[in-house]
Amino acid sequence: MTVDELIGQFRNSGSFGAGRLAAACDIYEKMLRDKECTIFLALSGAVIPAGMRNIVADLIRSRLVDVVVSTGACMVHDAIEAVGGHHYKGNWAVDDNELYKYHIFRIYDIYVPEEDYVKLDYRLAEIYNEIAAERKGESLASDEFAWELGKRLNDPNSILRAAYVAGVPIFLPSVRDSEFGFIHWLHSSQRKKKEILVVDAFKDVPTICGICGYSPKNGMIVIGGGVPRNTIQSAAIASRKAMDYAIVVTTDRPEAGGLSGSTLKETVSWGKMKDNADNVMVIGDATMVFPLIMASVIERLGGTKFKREPYLKRLKPNPLETYQNES
Amino acid sequence: MTVDELIGQFRNSGSFGAGRLAAACDIYEKMLRDKECTIFLALSGAVIPAGMRNIVADLIRSRLVDVVVSTGACMVHDAIEAVGGHHYKGNWAVDDNELYKYHIFRIYDIYVPEEDYVKLDYRLAEIYNEIAAERKGESLASDEFAWELGKRLNDPNSILRAAYVAGVPIFLPSVRDSEFGFIHWLHSSQRKKKEILVVDAFKDVPTICGICGYSPKNGMIVIGGGVPRNTIQSAAIASRKAMDYAIVVTTDRPEAGGLSGSTLKETVSWGKMKDNADNVMVIGDATMVFPLIMASVIERLGGTKFKREPYLKRLKPNPLETYQNES
Amino acid sequence: MTVDELIGQFRNSGSFGAGRLAAACDIYEKMLRDKECTIFLALSGAVIPAGMRNIVADLIRSRLVDVVVSTGACMVHDAIEAVGGHHYKGNWAVDDNELYKYHIFRIYDIYVPEEDYVKLDYRLAEIYNEIAAERKGESLASDEFAWELGKRLNDPNSILRAAYVAGVPIFLPSVRDSEFGFIHWLHSSQRKKKEILVVDAFKDVPTICGICGYSPKNGMIVIGGGVPRNTIQSAAIASRKAMDYAIVVTTDRPEAGGLSGSTLKETVSWGKMKDNADNVMVIGDATMVFPLIMASVIERLGGTKFKREPYLKRLKPNPLETYQNES
Amino acid sequence: MTVDELIGQFRNSGSFGAGRLAAACDIYEKMLRDKECTIFLALSGAVIPAGMRNIVADLIRSRLVDVVVSTGACMVHDAIEAVGGHHYKGNWAVDDNELYKYHIFRIYDIYVPEEDYVKLDYRLAEIYNEIAAERKGESLASDEFAWELGKRLNDPNSILRAAYVAGVPIFLPSVRDSEFGFIHWLHSSQRKKKEILVVDAFKDVPTICGICGYSPKNGMIVIGGGVPRNTIQSAAIASRKAMDYAIVVTTDRPEAGGLSGSTLKETVSWGKMKDNADNVMVIGDATMVFPLIMASVIERLGGTKFKREPYLKRLKPNPLETYQNES
Repeated sequence: MTVDELIGQFRNSGSFGAGRLAAACDIYEKMLRDKECTIFLALSGAVIPAGMRNIVADLIRSRLVDVVVSTGACMVHDAIEAVGGHHYKGNWAVDDNELYKYHIFRIYDIYVPEEDYVKLDYRLAEIYNEIAAERKGESLASDEFAWELGKRLNDPNSILRAAYVAGVPIFLPSVRDSEFGFIHWLHSSQRKKKEILVVDAFKDVPTICGICGYSPKNGMIVIGGGVPRNTIQSAAIASRKAMDYAIVVTTDRPEAGGLSGSTLKETVSWGKMKDNADNVMVIGDATMVFPLIMASVIERLGGTKFKREPYLKRLKPNPLETYQNES
Repeated sequence: MTVDELIGQFRNSGSFGAGRLAAACDIYEKMLRDKECTIFLALSGAVIPAGMRNIVADLIRSRLVDVVVSTGACMVHDAIEAVGGHHYKGNWAVDDNELYKYHIFRIYDIYVPEEDYVKLDYRLAEIYNEIAAERKGESLASDEFAWELGKRLNDPNSILRAAYVAGVPIFLPSVRDSEFGFIHWLHSSQRKKKEILVVDAFKDVPTICGICGYSPKNGMIVIGGGVPRNTIQSAAIASRKAMDYAIVVTTDRPEAGGLSGSTLKETVSWGKMKDNADNVMVIGDATMVFPLIMASVIERLGGTKFKREPYLKRLKPNPLETYQNES
Repeated sequence: MTVDELIGQFRNSGSFGAGRLAAACDIYEKMLRDKECTIFLALSGAVIPAGMRNIVADLIRSRLVDVVVSTGACMVHDAIEAVGGHHYKGNWAVDDNELYKYHIFRIYDIYVPEEDYVKLDYRLAEIYNEIAAERKGESLASDEFAWELGKRLNDPNSILRAAYVAGVPIFLPSVRDSEFGFIHWLHSSQRKKKEILVVDAFKDVPTICGICGYSPKNGMIVIGGGVPRNTIQSAAIASRKAMDYAIVVTTDRPEAGGLSGSTLKETVSWGKMKDNADNVMVIGDATMVFPLIMASVIERLGGTKFKREPYLKRLKPNPLETYQNES
Repeated sequence: MTVDELIGQFRNSGSFGAGRLAAACDIYEKMLRDKECTIFLALSGAVIPAGMRNIVADLIRSRLVDVVVSTGACMVHDAIEAVGGHHYKGNWAVDDNELYKYHIFRIYDIYVPEEDYVKLDYRLAEIYNEIAAERKGESLASDEFAWELGKRLNDPNSILRAAYVAGVPIFLPSVRDSEFGFIHWLHSSQRKKKEILVVDAFKDVPTICGICGYSPKNGMIVIGGGVPRNTIQSAAIASRKAMDYAIVVTTDRPEAGGLSGSTLKETVSWGKMKDNADNVMVIGDATMVFPLIMASVIERLGGTKFKREPYLKRLKPNPLETYQNES
């Protein structure tokens, strides 16, 4: 039985988690077939350690997403693998003090050697130096910073690299809150003020709002929640382009009031999503749910035969390039 | 029965959620009585809409916390009330499209009129103009930005105001991801490049790491998770000062691998917390749990009679001021 | 600050978990002051190991609940303490194989020595023999069985004892699914068929439905969910007396479709609860939430001064007794 | 991509929910290929309304499970469809008072007409009469009751029917707590005491313990938790045959102390599971997870080509039949 055949059975029963999962597949397929829709992907949590790095890079390369918004940490995980580091299968019930003594960092049941972080720190501090030298005096937006990283990471499997090569914008609204922040400290503590890389916290705001604003329709796929979800939804409200499609995969819950668990229904009151949008919230672990959605939809599209030309790429002049040139 | 008497009964049973809640009270009391400990408070989620604005402002004024790390959104909620806006009791089961038509934004069972956001936008855009004029040519750190806001918000109940007045640093590592970002767009779209406020995403990194590093001991109280929790933990690892005390109140769960739900045990492997730290994770809604902890501990301390002089304030020269002057 | 003063602040904020907790206190107070209301308490989960045995026994003795519906396991926990066993504070992160070798059973962070279970098995097997001898040839209903146990457990702090002494019915609809079932095997394997205690699975149905049916109004307080919640709700529908008041304290969630996490709103469609019933679902750990509700409401009632005469006790003839005699 | 190919990728990443799901598939395959293992399936929650009725009936017919332990409610859902009723796709956000007026019962996003329950009540009350007449004077065990129902439900797709036909024991330890209880009230209120069907709450205990005890090895697959999980685990401890294999699929959590969310690790201390058992707990919605496991494992087994002869069926004399004759 293929994955999409199973999803077809879930559609027939149509209820509880299985029904929501089938709806998520249908909505993503609809987004992809809607020639006017720009697709935003929000990444947070343990997406890369969980082994979804290739899936995300493939989505970018195949133009099955148009814009990525990520936590800093997700792109740190990507960069670690790009500089030769690894995420190893581990055990969540281990003695963490033993791991500490052996310089092994734990992410639930994944291990990363501290050594890989050290490797990352050195390589990225060099890259920061290069960027600062090239862009002297300029403040970068988070998406410019992401592309500058992608330009310099020579790993074809890297998400940052794939986004740079494909010209897919990748926003890092909380870039500071990850190893990228610590590396900046390393970099800046050794250099004169003029030679320090500056990322302007607010500079990416008009760019992402512009993308939303220029697109006739917008859709989002949220893995997790947090800052990436909020960033996309805020762009929707700021550009007065409430989302037409929305899929959220999360284990968070609404009742404590945090954004990550808030319902899509709630977003309608804010103008973040249209009242009649195709939308679904799948309550579950994205490490299971996200690959299921992708496998089902890619099967429907006929795999590599499906060609999608993103709306924004077809516009003349291209608003993305316009924004980039303005910056 | 007083709150602390009930917590005393919870300590006696000592198990399940009740036992963890009692442990959280004991650990916070211990932090406060430890003259060498600097106390970090992480805020995320619906803390202010839930009515905890006064509690947090009181903690700051009474020096029961030394450093605050917050999402942008929490301080937006604070600023809305500071400019005369309100969070109203609402209903989560309402028709959100009706709310949309009436320009009412919903946060679970709380309503905020769009009008209050408009008021905020205008007032803060003016404030951004003022800051940009005063600090011309400079890039601000997020904590400098927070104090600049606090200086200009004339509401004694405001958290931002209280932090500015008390000299309590307040870091906003994801400041862009909230109405602060949209307001920046309003502000910047009307001004010349030279007159635009710049917040440097990375500039607060050495400051918070320095605070951790100078303190003989460090403790954290985390409400929710996300970027604020990660920022504090990263400061601990960067300054090689694993936390001595840790309390996390969250509804998030570890098994999907995201940071917000990760166990404190896991943080030991990273060097974010000492293996023998006093620590507890209370799984529950912070709107119930946080006020219970505060009421219990304040009762133990004898209310206003307790005087606490933060370690960092006693240092000569004061490292906080040093950092601020350097910036 | 007293517990009820804190709850008063929660009522003022009125939102998220804190608002729901305050609503639960208000609804329980209202139930108690409503002279026509019969109050059902559903017990499941680790109520007794968590230290709430005295609270529940007090509620029964003070007539603050009229009917108890419990899992078998909860009353096994009660009986273990009644025969001299104990629930000890333990550690959830222990090596369970070590515990196994030392004959210690673990309930999350509580330990019970196997020895205490052995003590229970012997004492209760004797009691089963006695009951079978006294009620020869009869099939007992689960509530008769519970009272027969209570009659024979000489511990004034026991819930089973308190219920028997106070004449409060205590239903055990899943009595078989607990150590009571294993003890029955011990008892029955040593005796002739005629001398074996028979509990009729269905015999308590008309009794609990009758209580619901005779009461002008009904209210329920559910700790956890499972069979006890379902039993009460089924009695409401069977007697065509949808609940007038309902409080559910649970960590279960609705979206997978199980009864324990189903919303009270959903119960309206079934006629289990009135559409205009005072009702609230508090999402949280009952070991924290339940004692908070009780402390707050008892404070409001003026402690021991409050006298409540249950509706069903005032009826002449008393339908409870009628049912008991019929049985 | 087939389902098992996707699961293969999950095995490679091996972590978080995806890793646990792959482990569950591997463990179930291993159970099936272990010629000495008896496989227990625990059913609770919305398994049948969610559309998994056929999967479960197929598992029984194909001898891919040996023993079923179910809530009463699950078998009520099965029986409703057997008498011509239906579970319809609905909407969880509906006005439940409207549903009440139209006599439609809601289970999250599933609707069942009250009419179908009425149909069930009448048909089953007749069946109760028949059983009582046939088994006059006898008290039935819950598994005998289940087979008596299966014998009389003429629907080849029924789980109860399939279990009866295949000789697969089906235990209903909380049979009273469901529409079966209400139907018993209908049945008993119209008949003389001698003609009333008696189900003995404890009579199935030795049978299920005997099955565990005779099997060289035992494994369990738990959907949800509650009474069915507890019943199987209690049989393991009573027969001193700790489980060799265990899979639990649940959305429940351990920290509040209830059995449904308790970890498998905890069960080791009780002797319910061996320390070295192949075991995994998949945190997630069974409506997604259970069909995924089944599709993956059936693919591995080569579909219908796989022949499994249950251990207990091969024993001469067959202990199941022995128990049945004794009863």
